[in-house]
Amino acid sequence: MANRATPFVFNEWYVAAFAAELKQALLPRTLLGKRIVMFRTSAGKPVALADRCAHRAFPLSRSRLEGDTVVCGYHGFRYDEQGNCIEVPSAANCPKGVGVAQYPLVERGPLVWIWMGDPAAADPQRLPEQAWLGQPEWETSSGYFDLQSNYVSMHENLLDLTHLSFLHADTIGTPDYAKAPFRSEIRDGYFALHRDVVPTELPPVWARPTGLEGCKSAARIVKSEFKSPAFHQVNVSFYDSQLPEAQRRVSRIKTAHLLTPQTHSSSHYFIVHGRDFAQEDAGITHFMHENLFAAFNEDVEGLAALEQVWLETDPDEMFEMSVAADGPSVAMRRYLKARAEAEQAARSVATGAAGTVTMIQVPHRQEQPA
Amino acid sequence: MANRATPFVFNEWYVAAFAAELKQALLPRTLLGKRIVMFRTSAGKPVALADRCAHRAFPLSRSRLEGDTVVCGYHGFRYDEQGNCIEVPSAANCPKGVGVAQYPLVERGPLVWIWMGDPAAADPQRLPEQAWLGQPEWETSSGYFDLQSNYVSMHENLLDLTHLSFLHADTIGTPDYAKAPFRSEIRDGYFALHRDVVPTELPPVWARPTGLEGCKSAARIVKSEFKSPAFHQVNVSFYDSQLPEAQRRVSRIKTAHLLTPQTHSSSHYFIVHGRDFAQEDAGITHFMHENLFAAFNEDVEGLAALEQVWLETDPDEMFEMSVAADGPSVAMRRYLKARAEAEQAARSVATGAAGTVTMIQVPHRQEQPA
Amino acid sequence: MANRATPFVFNEWYVAAFAAELKQALLPRTLLGKRIVMFRTSAGKPVALADRCAHRAFPLSRSRLEGDTVVCGYHGFRYDEQGNCIEVPSAANCPKGVGVAQYPLVERGPLVWIWMGDPAAADPQRLPEQAWLGQPEWETSSGYFDLQSNYVSMHENLLDLTHLSFLHADTIGTPDYAKAPFRSEIRDGYFALHRDVVPTELPPVWARPTGLEGCKSAARIVKSEFKSPAFHQVNVSFYDSQLPEAQRRVSRIKTAHLLTPQTHSSSHYFIVHGRDFAQEDAGITHFMHENLFAAFNEDVEGLAALEQVWLETDPDEMFEMSVAADGPSVAMRRYLKARAEAEQAARSVATGAAGTVTMIQVPHRQEQPA
Repeated sequence: MANRATPFVFNEWYVAAFAAELKQALLPRTLLGKRIVMFRTSAGKPVALADRCAHRAFPLSRSRLEGDTVVCGYHGFRYDEQGNCIEVPSAANCPKGVGVAQYPLVERGPLVWIWMGDPAAADPQRLPEQAWLGQPEWETSSGYFDLQSNYVSMHENLLDLTHLSFLHADTIGTPDYAKAPFRSEIRDGYFALHRDVVPTELPPVWARPTGLEGCKSAARIVKSEFKSPAFHQVNVSFYDSQLPEAQRRVSRIKTAHLLTPQTHSSSHYFIVHGRDFAQEDAGITHFMHENLFAAFNEDVEGLAALEQVWLETDPDEMFEMSVAADGPSVAMRRYLKARAEAEQAARSVATGAAGTVTMIQVPHRQEQPA
Repeated sequence: MANRATPFVFNEWYVAAFAAELKQALLPRTLLGKRIVMFRTSAGKPVALADRCAHRAFPLSRSRLEGDTVVCGYHGFRYDEQGNCIEVPSAANCPKGVGVAQYPLVERGPLVWIWMGDPAAADPQRLPEQAWLGQPEWETSSGYFDLQSNYVSMHENLLDLTHLSFLHADTIGTPDYAKAPFRSEIRDGYFALHRDVVPTELPPVWARPTGLEGCKSAARIVKSEFKSPAFHQVNVSFYDSQLPEAQRRVSRIKTAHLLTPQTHSSSHYFIVHGRDFAQEDAGITHFMHENLFAAFNEDVEGLAALEQVWLETDPDEMFEMSVAADGPSVAMRRYLKARAEAEQAARSVATGAAGTVTMIQVPHRQEQPA
Repeated sequence: MANRATPFVFNEWYVAAFAAELKQALLPRTLLGKRIVMFRTSAGKPVALADRCAHRAFPLSRSRLEGDTVVCGYHGFRYDEQGNCIEVPSAANCPKGVGVAQYPLVERGPLVWIWMGDPAAADPQRLPEQAWLGQPEWETSSGYFDLQSNYVSMHENLLDLTHLSFLHADTIGTPDYAKAPFRSEIRDGYFALHRDVVPTELPPVWARPTGLEGCKSAARIVKSEFKSPAFHQVNVSFYDSQLPEAQRRVSRIKTAHLLTPQTHSSSHYFIVHGRDFAQEDAGITHFMHENLFAAFNEDVEGLAALEQVWLETDPDEMFEMSVAADGPSVAMRRYLKARAEAEQAARSVATGAAGTVTMIQVPHRQEQPA
């Protein structure tokens, strides 16, 4: 099963940044263990390059953006938005076919996605389904956490919301949550857990905005979905279960949990939360944002504590015991491990000599005609 | 000889905490490289469990004590004081025979001792002799240091008190100490060095409470004893050597230096210091405590500096040269190494497959009759 | 080519300290990965010893200087300035032939040089030529940086001053610098790059002290010389190129960049800067010192950022691409690698058993006649 010893899955779209973060300025970020620099061209197109000059490995993020080119802050090597080196100041002619890796980006609604695997396979069709993120009936609120944990732990956290009764006892959880009936869906690359908490009494964070305060017969219908290594979605419907179906006012929320590994023990955790009710009510937006992100922070702190256990414990002494509610998680972890290992096997076939240094002989200025 | 590369000796009693530290609350502590959580039951019994839920390794020290059970702060797995898992909230029935390791504890006077080796061998008879700690003629004073050093270095520090003239020149040492005659006792598992400093002039920390201020003919009779990997005792008698034996007033002190490895470069260092004179004098208690723990802090700082040398130096370049005063230390280090290696050999025979994950299929609530 | 994975070159003189730093006091410093302690004897002679007592490895820098001997702060072992152990307080006789390594030092002008390789080869004749450092026509100004980078990167930085137009765009560089013609000198152990920037307009840091402010026809004639693994010299002449040679007032500066590896990712960076003009003008000395060391700090910060790339990147993914201006650097890096590997091969032949502990049986005081 996947854990922090498992290689990353590269052939996937991951969120590199919120769209609003990308401007005409150099933004460095380590994604899947690699240093990346991003910027937006004058035409507004997002670009991601390896954050390492091809010459002496200077970080391009400490460089200068001139128009749509990056000029290395060390010796002035200039790169276009494809990562091609187009100028070497100390040389009359720029070597051909030299440059830094460029990574495909796709901007979709509030998110910019990056593909760090085989470029030939970077098909935007492979983006996980996320249509609601662009639809006007969903009022959204976003946030980011620098998660000090392996990304798989957060997927697992989200797939089994049993933990709401314990880790979130004071925020979004209720005691009956953990004991509510659930069922699993396990398909290739899709793992879900459905949980119906009926009847229940909602905690204030949900009761107040949905108008179900004081209601003892509330329904809380939850589906947690692993949609890709980068994307987990939680969907919840709230209503009064005592009303006949036709009279129910159903309030729905969706939360996109977007996970991008940074290292094997840290992750970028982007969150977009949406609701389809009281969309115009800024007070509710503020109230929910404050309360929900306080709850998400409980996950972030809890998983950081868990990561410490893994970091400090001899791997030979580590074990895990799983129960039925872990079914989708265990299947998900097996799936991630299988994909990572298949990729690794493919890479070891494809790799040539590494760590070589090319000495390119370029005629220098001195030898040019005046 | 044992040093920071030597495995720990597990089949021993080590001090886990002062008795006063254990309350009805979760206390985490890393002992011999393992994360432990301790608490006291409602009946006052001290308990130590592995600080790692059997389910997803969440630290139980971030959990909740409910009566005498620990409820994991992540998914609510409940453990009794034996470490048995007795409730899985998401499952109708708790899996049998699942749980976390429980470690034997013995409370004896001011100390709680833990056994982290083979549970079958956890015989309280093997506790090192320490009768004086419970006897009323000894007035005691305690302290704790987070020692940034391997525990063997502190045993060695205590076995050769030559260092009093140098490391403690301004506190408990005098220049003549290092040159005083000494003799060794080396038996299996017991190592001692006797040193008689006669005549001498005591430093204020000893002269004032013993009434030997200004006395040029004081005797300072010292025995340093390694009693176990966890326990070193220093015994000193002070008197005026010019008086006939019958007229001497002999003042005695005993110090229990209790060492529990945390990592290979850090240790828990508990100290209980006792005296058999002026027991009722709170002023003397205060004066001695302040001065002695200032001296012990010189050891702590000195050994932390020494540890840095070991950490920063290529092991192939490291060497040590020993002299006669190191005789008991060298024998002690050989003894610790032999025990550690014998245990390691035994463990490698006993160990089965490690790092495996058990998927226990428990029927979940949904499938239960209503 | 040499990089942070290449062993250090030991058979060389390196700067250990500015002469002014060495006083009758213990000064610890890690040089070429080894902990060293230095001091000056009462006669003013500089001494360097291994900073690790031969007994229990206590850092001698935490010890006491008594006259010209070092008394270990732990058990009082005393060493003379040759590193010989001359007293063991707990023993009647000091063991013969025991001690700590002493490293040859040579004081030359403002610098104290250390030899950490084969002592038999420590010939002061091998000091790199540096005559100007002692000559009165050069007015000097010194500084030190704790450089968080491998030392080879700084040599490379200095050998290709193309970077002045970019890393130092706001201080000592001008845009035309990178494109100026250059030529290389590559001999065994000597690597130089000459660059003539003519005509140019000098930045204020050079224009003001040389009286060339506003001059559009300035000449800036530069030679960067790798003189040894420890010593890089930059030589520059400034003058007005429109004047006939006989009328030119040539202002010259020399900068000794003195690099001593600390670890493979950090270095001691000593700098002595000299000028042969306006020697008496304290205002110019101050102005140039402030401005030049601000520029040197740009190198220090840039190379620290570069070091992070190396530290965070999988070595298998690292590569470098070189152009003509890197010619001397590439040759220099090959030279350093060849020397390091030759030394390593020689050491592996010479090395005997490592990590052994000698138990020296010295009769102790008790057995001495009174």
